[in-house]
Order: sequence, then C-alpha cells, then structure tokens
Amino acid sequence: MALTTESQARRLMARLDALAAFTDDPPRLTRLCLSQSHRRAAEQFIAWAKESGIAARIDPVGNVRARYEGRRPGAPALMIGSHIDTVRDAGRYDGALGALAALSLAEGLAAQGRRLDVALEIVAFGDEEGVRFPYTLTGSRGLAGVNEPEALAQKDAGGVTMRDALKAFGGDPDHLGAARADGVAAFVELHIEQGPVLEAEGRPLGIVSAINGATRLSAVVTGSAGHAGASPMDLRRDALAAAAEMVLAIEARARAEDELVATVGRLDVEPGAVNVIPGRARFTIDIRAPLDEPRRRAVADIAAAMQAIARRRGVRLDELTPTHEAAGYVCHPAIVAGLAAAVVAVGADPRLLPSGAGHDTMVMGQRWPAGMLFVRCKGGVSHNPAESISADDCAIALAALTRFAEDFRAA
Amino acid sequence: MALTTESQARRLMARLDALAAFTDDPPRLTRLCLSQSHRRAAEQFIAWAKESGIAARIDPVGNVRARYEGRRPGAPALMIGSHIDTVRDAGRYDGALGALAALSLAEGLAAQGRRLDVALEIVAFGDEEGVRFPYTLTGSRGLAGVNEPEALAQKDAGGVTMRDALKAFGGDPDHLGAARADGVAAFVELHIEQGPVLEAEGRPLGIVSAINGATRLSAVVTGSAGHAGASPMDLRRDALAAAAEMVLAIEARARAEDELVATVGRLDVEPGAVNVIPGRARFTIDIRAPLDEPRRRAVADIAAAMQAIARRRGVRLDELTPTHEAAGYVCHPAIVAGLAAAVVAVGADPRLLPSGAGHDTMVMGQRWPAGMLFVRCKGGVSHNPAESISADDCAIALAALTRFAEDFRAA
Repeated sequence: MALTTESQARRLMARLDALAAFTDDPPRLTRLCLSQSHRRAAEQFIAWAKESGIAARIDPVGNVRARYEGRRPGAPALMIGSHIDTVRDAGRYDGALGALAALSLAEGLAAQGRRLDVALEIVAFGDEEGVRFPYTLTGSRGLAGVNEPEALAQKDAGGVTMRDALKAFGGDPDHLGAARADGVAAFVELHIEQGPVLEAEGRPLGIVSAINGATRLSAVVTGSAGHAGASPMDLRRDALAAAAEMVLAIEARARAEDELVATVGRLDVEPGAVNVIPGRARFTIDIRAPLDEPRRRAVADIAAAMQAIARRRGVRLDELTPTHEAAGYVCHPAIVAGLAAAVVAVGADPRLLPSGAGHDTMVMGQRWPAGMLFVRCKGGVSHNPAESISADDCAIALAALTRFAEDFRAA
Repeated sequence: MALTTESQARRLMARLDALAAFTDDPPRLTRLCLSQSHRRAAEQFIAWAKESGIAARIDPVGNVRARYEGRRPGAPALMIGSHIDTVRDAGRYDGALGALAALSLAEGLAAQGRRLDVALEIVAFGDEEGVRFPYTLTGSRGLAGVNEPEALAQKDAGGVTMRDALKAFGGDPDHLGAARADGVAAFVELHIEQGPVLEAEGRPLGIVSAINGATRLSAVVTGSAGHAGASPMDLRRDALAAAAEMVLAIEARARAEDELVATVGRLDVEPGAVNVIPGRARFTIDIRAPLDEPRRRAVADIAAAMQAIARRRGVRLDELTPTHEAAGYVCHPAIVAGLAAAVVAVGADPRLLPSGAGHDTMVMGQRWPAGMLFVRCKGGVSHNPAESISADDCAIALAALTRFAEDFRAA
C-alpha cells in the first residue's frame, strides 16, 4: 500500500507540474475561471481520468466531474476535490493539488480493482479564486444548489458575462440546476495550508477545524495637516500617528484571542510629504476567526478602541465601514474525526487548525457534512510562484486521504 | 505714531493683495524664484519704493535692494526684509509680508522726514522656497558672500540653469560677488509664524529664539508578506505593525523634549492589499530642534528605538538613511532682546518661540547678528491659499518693527 501510494504521489507531483503549463500568461501561471487555459486544463484532467478508465465531464456550471462507483452501484458518494482555477501569477499547488489528488485516489483503487463501500465523486471546481468575477464559488454553489440567479449576469474586467464565458467553456448556463449533486454523503477537500503553522511545528498534515469567517472594514482618520517644523507636538492632530496607534490596537486585540487574526493590509497617508504632518490616513482592516460570535465581538472591540484613540487625540474617525462579511464554517465533527483517524493511521499527528482562507468546502458544508485536510507548504507561501510542497508530504497526504475514503461510512 | 502706523498697515495689506496678482499660474499664486511673475513683482516693489522717493534695484543675485539713509550718510545699516518668491499655490503673506513691511517702515520715516541713527537696508530675497532650484537661499547667501560656485549650474525641471534664469531676471551671474553687502550692523526679518502657537495662546507677536535645524531620514522596514487569514498573529512579521510602533516611538521621543518635533509625513505599504499582511513599509522621518545637539541626540535615540522594535518583531530595518541635514541657528541675543523690548513697547507679550521652518535669517546670521519677529497667522496655515493674517496684527507687527529700528544702535 505504502509503495503504491508513493508511486501515485510521484505521478501526482508530475501532473501538478504539467497542469501549471496551462496558463494564459506564460511563463507566469494565470488560469482564471472559465478562461481558455482553464478549459485546456479541464480537458487534460478529463484525459488523465480516461487513461484510468474513469469517465469525466464538464458539468453545466463549469466543474470537471467524475464518478468511481462503489461496491454497490448507486451507493452514496463521498465527494472529494478542490479547484483548478488560479489567481494571477499563481503557484501550482493551491487548488490543483486537491483536485488531482482526488483523481489519484480513484485511480489507485481502479489500478487495484478495488471498490469501496461508497462511490467516489471527484470534482475539480472552476471558480474558487474570485479574481475574474466578483461573486465567486459558483462551482460548489452549483453542486449545493445555492447559486444566486444574478451570478450569470456578472461581468469580468473586459465586459464578458459569466453566462457567455460559461457557454464558451463548455458549461450550460441555461440548465445550471442540472449541476446539482445528489446522493452525496459527505465532502472532503485536500489543500495546501497557505500559512506557516504546520511548517513551524514540523508537521506534514493538519485537519481543518473551521474555515474562518471574515469582516473587512475601511477606515478614514482625519486630523489636521500642518508644517512639520512649525507645529509643536502638543498642538498636532496627526492622522498617521492616530492610525499607527489604531494599527497596534487592532494587532493587540487579535493577539489577545486564540485563532482570531486581524490585519491592516493597506494604509495611505495624505498629503504624504516628508515635511507635512499627515492630515488624513485611510486604511483597511481584515478580521477573521473560525467562529462568528468571537469575530463580531472583536470587530466591536476594535471599533470602540479606534473611537477612543480618535477622541483622545482630537482626530475624527470619519469612516469605519464594513466592505465584506462572510460567515465562518465549522467543519463537520464526523469528518474532522475521520480525518484525524486517517492522519494518525498514516503516522502523523492529528493537528487541528483553522483555515484562514475561504474554500469551496464552506459552500459544500451548507448542504453536506464537510471537512478539509491541509498539507504543509514551504514558508506558508501561496498565491505566488514560490508556492511549494515536498514529494514526501504529497505522499502522506494522499495516503491519509485514501485511508479516510477507505474507512468512510455513509451515515 | 499709532495712527500713522495704522494707515501704513492698511496700505501694506492692500499691497500684499496686489502683489498676490503676480503669478505664473492664475488664479493660484505661484511665483517661483526668478520666474516672469517674480520679475514683475520685483518691478512693482521697485515702483512702490520710487513713489516714496526711495531708489531700489535688482542686485546681481536677484534680490530687490533699497537703502534709506540714516542721519549720517554712510552710517552702519540695519538690514530688514524677507522673500518675495513663493511655493506653488501659495498664500500671500509668507515672505511678502516681511519684504513689504521693510519698505513700509522706510516709507513711514520718509513721510515724516525722519532719519534714524542707522541707515535702513531693505531687501526682498528671491530664492527662499527652494521649489524651482534645489540649492536654495542664494539671495541671502549672496549678501553674506557664502554662495557655492555650483549654485549657478543647477537646473530647474525644464532644464533651465540658474545662471540663465538669473540673467533673464535682471541679475548678473558673472558678478555675483558684487551682491555682497557691507556696512551692515544687523539683520531682522518679519514673517508669519506658519504654526499654531501664537493663535493658540492669543498673542499677535512672537520673537524667534532659534531657527530649527533639521534631519530627514528615509526608512525601509522589511517583514514577511502573507495571507491575512492563514497566518496566526504569533507567526507574523508584519512590516506595517512594526512601522506603526516606530511611528509612535518617534512621536514619544519628540514629545519627551521641549521644542523638539518629529514627523512621519509619508508611509507606503507593500504589497498594499486588504487581505495580505504587509511585507514592507517605507516611510520618512523629519526631526527638528532649535539646537543641533539635542536634535542629533534625538536622531540617535530614534534610530536605536527603531532597531529595538525591528529586533523584537523579527523584521529588518533595511534602511535608515539621512536625506537632508541642516544646522539650526540660535538668534543673536542682542536682536532677541531688542525685538522683545519693541514688542513690549507696542503692548504685546514678548513670547519667545523657535521657528520650525527655515528662513533667509539662518544664512544672514552666519555673518551678522540676526533675528526674527513672527506674526500670528490663522490656523497656523501656510503654503496654502488659506494663509491669512488680520489687519490689526499687521499693524502691531509693523509698529514693533518700527520701534525696533528706532531703538536699534549699531554695536
């Protein structure tokens, strides 16, 4: 079994390299949702499945789908997969690893002529990154049957509607409902961690406890611009100094609570001259936590702290506006337990950790028991050509995923 | 005397309005050094002097100069003046007030047929703002005889050399040495405060104790960019959070010492996305104090504090580079005492305060006893069309300047 998994993992790593050649912007990997390179990648995926005798197809909403039957035809299915669209100038593992691993798993069984209690539904979602179209995750929403009607009307930067892009891709915008999956017992997704925790702890695998919900805010602090030489410190209303204190208050609030993170990613200063006291600072705040209630509490605490800083410094908090709000998803306990058992079975520690990034699993979890397996990635880097995993980690991840499927019983 | 000063002040305010019409960028006031509008303003200045029988001329380095003789021809001179060049989109008082007030003072004496113990040398400097040519203060440097030879070779943004601009203006670049002033006993400059202190304290006038020296630095902090969701707080090396702590350390150090100011006026964050932990922050630091030694100590303390913050946070302070260094000038005690006596004589409090901005007085002080009188300006605003002084403050400033000249005795 171990040897087989290793040869499978070698092939999986080779396919990940090969899939990275499907890009609309060589030598960079840029494979946006429903693009020409996405279509060619989907066709390659289908061709690989066919080599192992597994029939695959593009579904109406643009996912690649395949089914490997269980012992009993029509058995409940364990759905496994991830996405094959990418951000611009992407790495080759984010998404593709989980989609191709699902195919590897079925191929491994097929090569041995084995069938499991459950069928395997393999999926390569097409719209996870949200770079081309703002309303995203249409692939998993299509399976779960929760797409909003306006999804097809949205346009990309070039004015192309998702409807037209989907038609050109080989989907069927007029029959999106036909993408809805039935007979699914659970969903599980393998993905790179996109963070530094597993590497820092020397662990190859992690089990996702929950996918963070997120609140994003934009803030505007207005003080008073003035001559950097001629204004004594006690007469200043320095918008940047106030913003700096807010940045540290945001950081301190996040540090005070496990699994809560908060980030000020943008900050702009006006007028922005070496010899002028800043009159205005604009910045963004991104707050995430696995559970919604602690996140909402942190948002409220941060807003109160910012107001207090503004008052004390005599500046105005002119704006503190939510720009994005997403609920968190707590992974299904049965899936978490099953993944933990599989991870232990392949000799690793069952480390639970939240996912900071969003995933199709969030959507799948709205309809089915769902969970995720993380694999360590180098430096925690993702969304970057430097994204990297080791062949050994790939092998143990594939072994754990296989073990999970072997032991999975539909409720 | 008071009545006469009031009518003089009314005319002075009217001339300040009239001079604001000389601009190369109407309706904004932009009168850069040695520009066409600067030339026309200089000609207007000369015409106003002529109306009072005072001969004025453009000197070789581009200053407008005039002399009102004392009781004894060839007596030592008190030189009084300021500059008539402006920044872009300027106010009408910065510089012009002091230059035209010097003329008003001589006119007032001429109207009464009075002569003082000293002659009055009136000067309207031409190169104070440093907007057009980087090496600046060539007007006062010319009088003091300390211009560097390379000054004439410098070019403006359009490639015009100062030599050519000076020739077109009516100066004499081949005989700059002839601009050197002799027989001067002292120099005094009236200027708007450009800061909020006098307004905050309800005082019309201030006596400058010293002109701040300045050190400017550029800083680059490098941490590690990462996914805003997937990096726990304790594994981050957030360049902006580190920079924010440095901004507050800089502010705290400046607050801890009287008359020291420090400003972070620019701050740029990379990559600058709402969902990415900042990997790099670049910012400027401007540190000023009347005395050089406390300023240098503050620069050293701030550098040490920044290094400590960087070390503690595991980020790198990749750059902390001086970009500008100017020594401070402590105003001459005899001039400070004389201005204080004059301010008291016109019924105001002798408030001493440092000048945060640089002035021609810094250069004049290298050769002669020198000092400055500040007049309150609205909101502390300068370098802006909203720049404003009241007619009453203009009158009391003119009265104090007159009193200073009347009481001045050459050493």
